[in-house]
Amino acid sequence: MTLQTRVERRLDQALSQMEGQPAPQGFAKSLRYSVMPGGARIRPTILLSVAQACGDPNPAAADAAAAALEMIHCASLVHDDLPAFDNADTRRGKPTVHKGFSESIAVLAGDTLIVGAFDTVAQVQDPALAVALTRKLARYTGSPFGICAGQGWESESTVDLHAYHMAKTGALFIAATEMGAIAAGQEAEPWHDLGALIGQAFQVADDLRDALYDEATLGKPVGQDEALDRPNAVASYGVDGAIARLKDILAGAIASIPACPGEAALADMVRRTAQKLTPSDAHRSAVPGE
Amino acid sequence: MTLQTRVERRLDQALSQMEGQPAPQGFAKSLRYSVMPGGARIRPTILLSVAQACGDPNPAAADAAAAALEMIHCASLVHDDLPAFDNADTRRGKPTVHKGFSESIAVLAGDTLIVGAFDTVAQVQDPALAVALTRKLARYTGSPFGICAGQGWESESTVDLHAYHMAKTGALFIAATEMGAIAAGQEAEPWHDLGALIGQAFQVADDLRDALYDEATLGKPVGQDEALDRPNAVASYGVDGAIARLKDILAGAIASIPACPGEAALADMVRRTAQKLTPSDAHRSAVPGE
Repeated sequence: MTLQTRVERRLDQALSQMEGQPAPQGFAKSLRYSVMPGGARIRPTILLSVAQACGDPNPAAADAAAAALEMIHCASLVHDDLPAFDNADTRRGKPTVHKGFSESIAVLAGDTLIVGAFDTVAQVQDPALAVALTRKLARYTGSPFGICAGQGWESESTVDLHAYHMAKTGALFIAATEMGAIAAGQEAEPWHDLGALIGQAFQVADDLRDALYDEATLGKPVGQDEALDRPNAVASYGVDGAIARLKDILAGAIASIPACPGEAALADMVRRTAQKLTPSDAHRSAVPGE
Repeated sequence: MTLQTRVERRLDQALSQMEGQPAPQGFAKSLRYSVMPGGARIRPTILLSVAQACGDPNPAAADAAAAALEMIHCASLVHDDLPAFDNADTRRGKPTVHKGFSESIAVLAGDTLIVGAFDTVAQVQDPALAVALTRKLARYTGSPFGICAGQGWESESTVDLHAYHMAKTGALFIAATEMGAIAAGQEAEPWHDLGALIGQAFQVADDLRDALYDEATLGKPVGQDEALDRPNAVASYGVDGAIARLKDILAGAIASIPACPGEAALADMVRRTAQKLTPSDAHRSAVPGE
């Protein structure tokens, strides 16, 4: 079974639990709409890749962690698209949840997916493992280290750029590598830097996409960083400089991989991710939208 | 130490964790603002009362469960007050979070409190207990049985009134009694009905307050049910009929209390709650606002 199939199956199982009776059925539809069909599923794929590199002794725990992480990511997209944030009309080539349903349903769908994510990791059979995964997921979702705090920076009058980037973009990648290791029964800490560096690479790649692609290719509005006055690698280094920086960061990510049985395969995965993330000058093929 | 003091202390501890560095400090203020000063803290007080009735062998676990439940309740108030829902300007006598901060901060504060609630129950030392509490909290917060699903009913074209009331108002009271029992090492199921009946009583009392009191007394806008076309016990039974129904429900709640060491004291607590909830004809003293 491919990693993507594992992610989709566990997500489907979690959604089926949430949308069953006695849930109101219009609202229930918004949950699956928020999660399916997905984007590139990059975070859960990284999580499962790290678990595999560590031997993947508890695949059900890894699948639950991966699905939970993706549910948090989807919830963050639904809330970030709201009029009070990015005010986006489209996402993954279809109307955003508040456009396709309503603003109140979009708030509730995001809330419900957050809750569902914690319920999913809590379903891991070994209680100690379930608790360790729950705490990591909370750390990198909430405050002060998670994506909620990261988004909170966008309302501050002065911004700590390091803290902002670490929390806004880095947090869920760090969660991916650390939770992958935990699910495989390993210590989380040695896997922190790999997640942080992949997160940095992803941020630079997102800045490049935002600068280079048109809205139809991306399936979401472009030019948002400039419009919202957010820091941007392309604005700081130019396109070529940002591409060079992306390659440097990914080389550092590969170098940071801890010794483990599947070290070489994991390095290959990071290289493949790098290729997908890096815009090609010959033909700027679509990078999978988030 | 009073039950209320236990709740406030554990809430303060959870908030201190969330608002510390490197959290953006404007955003961090909104978290404490959403939780302190509190309303009547009815749900966590019920939770601790049930734990005490069962002997309270793990007070730290009960405190964590109580604080987590109140954080979920506060998050639900912050999101329900948003313009897309009740569009309320005031709550507990001060501006709502989206009025005092901003709409985006209100969405984020609610999200962060949900995450903080799960992190708080996951901090319970015994992993099996932590997992049991996490799963109950998720059940009665998310979908299909929780307050998210309950709020979702308000966007449906046809409403299952029983499912709506059970989820919207009942869920967190059922969570209170069941989690109180779990924290004390007891089975949850025998405590379900006590929570459900207290939830029903609270719904009727809320309808009475909404019909009888003015905005200054309540600290929040009145007449919301009528304005929003929501079902209401006063509209169905009249004021006297609703008061009679409230007393019947509370008698049923007391009768439902399972045999336990502190059964008599718990019945007294429910009776005191009943007195606080029931409007007096002589002088309609303020019922603590939520």
